[in-house]
Amino acid sequence: MKNTKLQAFIPLFYLVWSDDHLTQKEFATLKEFIVSKTGISVEDQDFLLSKIDISNPPSRNELAQWKSDIEKIIQNKPFIKSVFELAGALSEKDSDIYVSESDFLQLENDLGILGEEVIQNFKTKANSFTANSQTTSNFDIQKITALLDGREAAIIKKVKSVISRPEFAYETSTDIHVFRETVYKWCKILADENLGNMAYPKQYGGGENIADYFAIMETLSYHDLSLVIKFGVQFGLWGMSVQSLGTEKHYAKYLKDIGSLKLPGCFAMTETHHGSNVKGLETTATYNHNDQTFTIHTPNKNAQKEYIGNAAVHGQMATVFAKLIIDDHDYGVNAFVVPLRDSNGKVVDGVTIGDCGHKMGLNGVDNGTISFDQVKIPKENMLDRFASVNEKGEFESPIPSDNRRFFTMLGTLVGGRIGIPRSALAAAKSGLTIAIRYSDQRRQFGPEGGAEVPILNYRMHQRRLLPPLAKTYAVHFALQYLTNRFLNKTEAEMQEIEALAAGMKSYSTWSTRDILQECREACGGKGYLSENRIDALKNDTEIYTTFEGDNTVLMQLTAKNRLSEFRKSFGEMGSLGIINYVYENAKTAISEKNPIATRKTDEEHLLDGEFHLQAFVHREKTILASAARRIKKLVDSGLEPYDAVNVVQHQMIDVSQAYLERVVLEQFQKAIETIEDQQVKNILQKLNQLYALSQIEKNKAWYLEDGYMEAVKTKAIRKMVNQLCWDIRPDAVALVNAFDIPESCLAAPIAAL
Amino acid sequence: MKNTKLQAFIPLFYLVWSDDHLTQKEFATLKEFIVSKTGISVEDQDFLLSKIDISNPPSRNELAQWKSDIEKIIQNKPFIKSVFELAGALSEKDSDIYVSESDFLQLENDLGILGEEVIQNFKTKANSFTANSQTTSNFDIQKITALLDGREAAIIKKVKSVISRPEFAYETSTDIHVFRETVYKWCKILADENLGNMAYPKQYGGGENIADYFAIMETLSYHDLSLVIKFGVQFGLWGMSVQSLGTEKHYAKYLKDIGSLKLPGCFAMTETHHGSNVKGLETTATYNHNDQTFTIHTPNKNAQKEYIGNAAVHGQMATVFAKLIIDDHDYGVNAFVVPLRDSNGKVVDGVTIGDCGHKMGLNGVDNGTISFDQVKIPKENMLDRFASVNEKGEFESPIPSDNRRFFTMLGTLVGGRIGIPRSALAAAKSGLTIAIRYSDQRRQFGPEGGAEVPILNYRMHQRRLLPPLAKTYAVHFALQYLTNRFLNKTEAEMQEIEALAAGMKSYSTWSTRDILQECREACGGKGYLSENRIDALKNDTEIYTTFEGDNTVLMQLTAKNRLSEFRKSFGEMGSLGIINYVYENAKTAISEKNPIATRKTDEEHLLDGEFHLQAFVHREKTILASAARRIKKLVDSGLEPYDAVNVVQHQMIDVSQAYLERVVLEQFQKAIETIEDQQVKNILQKLNQLYALSQIEKNKAWYLEDGYMEAVKTKAIRKMVNQLCWDIRPDAVALVNAFDIPESCLAAPIAAL
Repeated sequence: MKNTKLQAFIPLFYLVWSDDHLTQKEFATLKEFIVSKTGISVEDQDFLLSKIDISNPPSRNELAQWKSDIEKIIQNKPFIKSVFELAGALSEKDSDIYVSESDFLQLENDLGILGEEVIQNFKTKANSFTANSQTTSNFDIQKITALLDGREAAIIKKVKSVISRPEFAYETSTDIHVFRETVYKWCKILADENLGNMAYPKQYGGGENIADYFAIMETLSYHDLSLVIKFGVQFGLWGMSVQSLGTEKHYAKYLKDIGSLKLPGCFAMTETHHGSNVKGLETTATYNHNDQTFTIHTPNKNAQKEYIGNAAVHGQMATVFAKLIIDDHDYGVNAFVVPLRDSNGKVVDGVTIGDCGHKMGLNGVDNGTISFDQVKIPKENMLDRFASVNEKGEFESPIPSDNRRFFTMLGTLVGGRIGIPRSALAAAKSGLTIAIRYSDQRRQFGPEGGAEVPILNYRMHQRRLLPPLAKTYAVHFALQYLTNRFLNKTEAEMQEIEALAAGMKSYSTWSTRDILQECREACGGKGYLSENRIDALKNDTEIYTTFEGDNTVLMQLTAKNRLSEFRKSFGEMGSLGIINYVYENAKTAISEKNPIATRKTDEEHLLDGEFHLQAFVHREKTILASAARRIKKLVDSGLEPYDAVNVVQHQMIDVSQAYLERVVLEQFQKAIETIEDQQVKNILQKLNQLYALSQIEKNKAWYLEDGYMEAVKTKAIRKMVNQLCWDIRPDAVALVNAFDIPESCLAAPIAAL
Repeated sequence: MKNTKLQAFIPLFYLVWSDDHLTQKEFATLKEFIVSKTGISVEDQDFLLSKIDISNPPSRNELAQWKSDIEKIIQNKPFIKSVFELAGALSEKDSDIYVSESDFLQLENDLGILGEEVIQNFKTKANSFTANSQTTSNFDIQKITALLDGREAAIIKKVKSVISRPEFAYETSTDIHVFRETVYKWCKILADENLGNMAYPKQYGGGENIADYFAIMETLSYHDLSLVIKFGVQFGLWGMSVQSLGTEKHYAKYLKDIGSLKLPGCFAMTETHHGSNVKGLETTATYNHNDQTFTIHTPNKNAQKEYIGNAAVHGQMATVFAKLIIDDHDYGVNAFVVPLRDSNGKVVDGVTIGDCGHKMGLNGVDNGTISFDQVKIPKENMLDRFASVNEKGEFESPIPSDNRRFFTMLGTLVGGRIGIPRSALAAAKSGLTIAIRYSDQRRQFGPEGGAEVPILNYRMHQRRLLPPLAKTYAVHFALQYLTNRFLNKTEAEMQEIEALAAGMKSYSTWSTRDILQECREACGGKGYLSENRIDALKNDTEIYTTFEGDNTVLMQLTAKNRLSEFRKSFGEMGSLGIINYVYENAKTAISEKNPIATRKTDEEHLLDGEFHLQAFVHREKTILASAARRIKKLVDSGLEPYDAVNVVQHQMIDVSQAYLERVVLEQFQKAIETIEDQQVKNILQKLNQLYALSQIEKNKAWYLEDGYMEAVKTKAIRKMVNQLCWDIRPDAVALVNAFDIPESCLAAPIAAL
C-alpha cells in the first residue's frame, strides 16, 4: 500500500474477507466508516474502498500476504492485545493512525468482531490444554483385574484360555444355518471342558459350583453372544429347570447327558400370546387315568411355544410349561419333560416345529416355535418337586395356591436373572474397551496451527464414554453383590432377592443398551462396520431388555416388592409406624434440606461419598413413600387397584430405579472400602464419584422439585461431572484394559493395541 | 368350622396363605393375637392355631373353599368396606365377633394388609377404565394424509405405486452380494421411471424439480433403506456434485447418463483419517503443466477414501475431493471427476478398491475404499465452478480464501442434509405404525376376573409411543419448512439455512434413533424378529447419525452459527445492543417469571400454545446468551479459543437443541393454524400440546434451575403429559394410518390390518 498508514486496515479487510462473506451490511458499515474519516485523502479512500468491492474480492495471494503480515507483527510484538493495537503496529506508526481507539472499537462491534479472540487465533497454538491431555498410567492394571475377578479368577482364566483358541475364531458367515452349527460346535467344546455342567451336583458329573457357573457365563460373553445364549439355554434353562423343578429320578435320567450336550434341550415357557403374563399360558397337560400318562396339547395357534432357543434345530427334549388338567379341573401351570426329536434329529409325531428365522441378533441361536398335537408322555415326565399326581390320580402339592406354587417354581429359576445382567455387563465392557481405545488414537481437529487431537480429549466425547465407564464399574460390584446374596440366600430373603435380581437385570441390560449406543456413535463410521464388533454386541444384547422378563414389567415387579416391604415395615413398627416414619423422614429432610446443605457447592462436599449416599437414600425413600401414598389415595377415592397401579405405572419405574441406583452406589462404595492399594483406591474412588454425580445430574429435576438441592448446587454438580471426566481421561485406557478381555475376543481392528 | 364365630378368621387365613408366604413374623403376630383373646376357648384356639401351622399349610381345596366363601359374602353384601365387616359377615353373627374393630385394624396393620384394596380385589372387575380404552375414529384420516403430502401428493402417489410392485418384494437373502444386486436392480427401475433425474435440468433429461426429488427420497424410505441410500449416492451425491460443482461441459457429458444409471458413480470425500475434519483431506491432485493433466494420488494408507457408497461394486466414476497442488503450492481442497472402472466393471489402472464388507445395516449398499496410485486425468475433469486452472497453468477462483471456497462448495451440497432427515422421519413413521398397530392388538394382563387388555392402554406403553408420535408429526412440519427455505433461498440466507439443515439433520436422525429403540422394545420378542422389520429400520438408520456429518459435530456447527448471528445482531444494534438485549430479556423474564406465572398450573394455561412458545423461546435465548457470555469470559481469562470452545462443548449442544426445538414447535403451530377441518385441527392440536409439554418435561431441570418454572408447575406438566397420552390413545392407530405407508412396505406380520 502506498500510504503505510493504510496498513492499519489490513486486519479488518482480512477478517471480513477470510472468515465470512462480505455482506452488504458489512460493506455499508466499512464504507461509512472510511468515508467519515476526513483525515484520509480521497485517493486513499478510493483505494480502501477498492479493497471492499463485493464484485472484485482480493486475490488469494493478497489474502495470504495480509495474513502473513499480521502473523509477523503478532509474533514480534507479543504484547498486542487488541485489533486496534494490531492496526497501529501494522501502520508502522504505532497507534498514530487515522482513528481513535473508541471509534475503532465501535467499528469492531458493528462488524461483530471479537478482538481478543482474533488476536489469539493468530498466535501459534502450543499451550492448548485440550491438545495436551493424554493417556498415562497411574496404577497397576493387574491389581484392578484381580479385584474384579475376585475368587473366580481361576475359572475366568480357564474360560479365557478356551475361548482364545483358534477354533473359537468368530464365524463370519451371514448364513444362519452355518452360524448355528458353529455355535453348536463351540458349545460341545465347552461341554467337553466340563464348563456346561458346572452347577450340577457332583454325583451327576457336575462341578456343583454355581458361583463358577455365573463366572463362566460372564466370561464367555466376551466372545460371541449367540454362544452365551445357546450355552445358557442348554445348561442353564434346560438343565436347571430339570434340577430345580424335578426330583432325583429326573436328575439320574437327564442331568449327565444334558451336561455333556448329549441331550440338547429347550425351556418351553413363552407362548405367542403369553410372554410377560405367563400365568395365562394355554398349553394343556391333561392327565389320563387309564394309562397314567399326560397329553400335552396346544389348543390354538396363539398358544404355540414361541422364541424357544434350541427348538428350531438341535433340541431333543423340552421342559414344557402347561396347565395341568385332571378330570376337567385346572391345577395351574406345571412343568413336564416332553420329547421333541429322536437322537437322529427326526421330529417326533404330534410335534410341529417352526423356525423364528432371521433375527436382529443372536443368529447363532436356533429359536423356534413348538406346537403339540395330543402328544402323550409318561407320568414320570412331570417335574414333580412342587406338585405331583399321586397313584390315585389326585393332585398333590405342598403349596396349596396355584399362583403361589407357580411363582415359587419361577423363583427357583431366578438364576437366569443373574446370568443375563452379568452377560450384559461383559458386553458393555467389550464395547467400552473398543470405543475408548479407538477414541484415544483417533484424532480429529486441533488448535490452529497444531496437530490434530485425540477425540477422547473433547468434552462431549468424554461425557459420552466416561460416565458409562464409571457406571460399568459400579454395576460390576452390584452384580457381585447380587450373586453373593443369591448364593447365600435364606428362605426368608428369597422374595427380596428375586426382586433385586429382576431389578438388576433391567438396570444392567438397559445400561448396556445405552452404553453400546454411545460406543457405536463415538466410533463413527468405523463403529458401523461389522468387523469392529459393536454391530454384534449391540444387536445381540438388544433382546436382553426383553427376554428373561421384559424390563418394564420387571421394574414393576421390583417396585411392588418395595411397596410391600414398605407396608410390612409399617406393620412391624405397629400402628404408630407410619407416623414415626414420616417424622423420621421429616427430621432427615430438615437436617439435609437446610439452606446451607441445599446450596453447598464446595468440592469436598460434592465429592463426599456420604453426601452421595444420603442423596440417593433420600430419593429412594421419598419416591417410595410418595408412590405408596398415591396408590392408597387413588384406591381410597374408589379406583380399581388395577387402574390405580396403571395410573402410577410411571412412578413405579422410578421407585425401582431409585432403589437400584442406591444399591449400586452402596455396593461400589463398600467394594472400594476394602481396597488397600492406594493408587487403585484413588482411581476407583474417582469413578465412584463420577457414577454418583452423573446419576444425581441425570435426576437433578427430581432433586430440584423435591427441594433437596437448589440450582446453584445442581449447576456445580454438572461442572464437577465435567471435571471428573477430564481427570479420569488419562486413565481411561488403563481402566478398560483392566477388564482384561482377550484380544482375540475383542478382535476389532480399531481397538488393536 | 365347628364354631361359626371362628369363620371371622377366614379372610386373614386366606390372605396370609394365598398372597404371601406365612412368615415367622406373621405366624408370631397371629398367634399372639389368637392367644390374647380370652373369649375364645382353648379348644377353639388350638383349632385356629392349627390353621397357621407353617409345616402344615391348608390344602388347595380348603383355600378354594375360603375364597369362595368370601366372594359369596361380598357379592351378597356390597356395602362391606373393611376386612372387619367382612369378618363379621362371615361369622354369621354380623359384627358380634371376638374382637373389637380397633383390635382388628391393629392386627391388619401388623400384618401389612390394606383392607379396602383386599375387598376391591374380591369384587368382579367390570368397570376398569384401563380395560375400556380402545381405538375409535374421530377424524377423516385422508384429510391428514392430504395435509402431510401437500403439493407433493402426486409424486408421492407415483412413488408408492412403483415400490408396491411385486418386483419390489423385500430381499430376504443375508448374502450381501445378492442384496447389493437386488438394490441395484431396484435403482434401475426407479431410473427408468424418471425418478432419479428429477432434480436435474430439463435439457439433460431431468425433471428440474428439487421439491419432488426430496419427496421421492422420503417416500422411498418407506421401502428398503439400502435402496434409498444407493439412490441418494447415485442421483444425489454423485449427480448433484457434478451439477453443483461442475459447469456446462460436465453437465453435457455426464448428467444424462447419471440420471439413467448408465453411469454409476461415487462421491469420494471421506478418508480413513478424515471424516468430520474434511478440511484436512490428504489426497492430492497435482497439476502437470506439460500435458495439462492432474495426477490423483493417495499419499498414505490413511488417506484412502473410505465408506464410499457405490465404490465396492458398481461405481464407474467418482467425484474425488483432493488438495490441488500447482508447482508445490497447495490451493486447498477441490473436486475432480476420476474414472474407477470401465463399462465392463474392470477397475482402471492405478485405482485400488477395497470392500467395507458387512455392516450393521444398509448391506444393500456397496461401500468401499478407494486408493489412487498416480492416476492421471485430463484437465477438464476438474469440477470448475468455484475454482479452475487457466491456460497458463495458474489457479483462478472467484473466492480467494481456500477455506471459504471449500465451505462454499460444501454449502452447495447441503441438500443431503435435507434428504437424510426426511428419510429418517419416514423410518420413524414406519416404526411407529408397526409398534402402535401391534400395541393396539397385543393384550397382556388385565383386571382381576376380566379379559386381558391391549398393551397400548398401559401408561408406560403410552409414554413410550405417543410422545414420539407427536414428535414425528412435529418434525414432519419442521422438515417441510426447512425444505421450503432451501428451495426459496437467497444468498444472504444461505448460512442460516445451512446451519438449520445441519441441526435438523441431527434432530431428526437422533429422534428416529430413539423412536425406533422404543418401538423395538414396545414390540417385545416380536420386535426382534427380522420379519417385523424394526431390525432393518433400526440398523439401517443407525448410521444416519454419523454420515452426512456426525450429529455432535453438526450440532456444534449450528451452535456456532447461532452464536455468530447473536454477535452480529449486537453489531447491528450498535454498542448499546448488548445492554438493550439484556434489558429486553430481563423485561421478558420479569413478566414471565413472576410468582404467578412460574406456579400457574391451570389446564387452560398448560395447554396454551402461546405459553409453550414463550417457554421455548425463553430457553433458546437464555442458553444462547449464557453460552456467548461464558465463551467470552473464558477467552478473556486467557484461554485459547479452541480450549474455550471445548470447555463449553456440552452447552453448545444445548444451544442448538433449544434452537431446533423452538423451530420445530413454531412450525408445527403454524401448520395447524392453516387447517380448516375442525376435527383434524383438534387432534393435531393435541399432538402439538403433547410435543410441547413432553419437551418441557424433558427439559424441566433447566426450567427449574432457571427459575422459569417452579416444582408445582413441572409436576403439573408431568400429569398433563400423562393425560394427553391417555386422550390421544384412541386416535393413535388412525394417526399412524394417516402416514399412509403402503402395506407391502410395512410388511410386518404384527402390523397387519
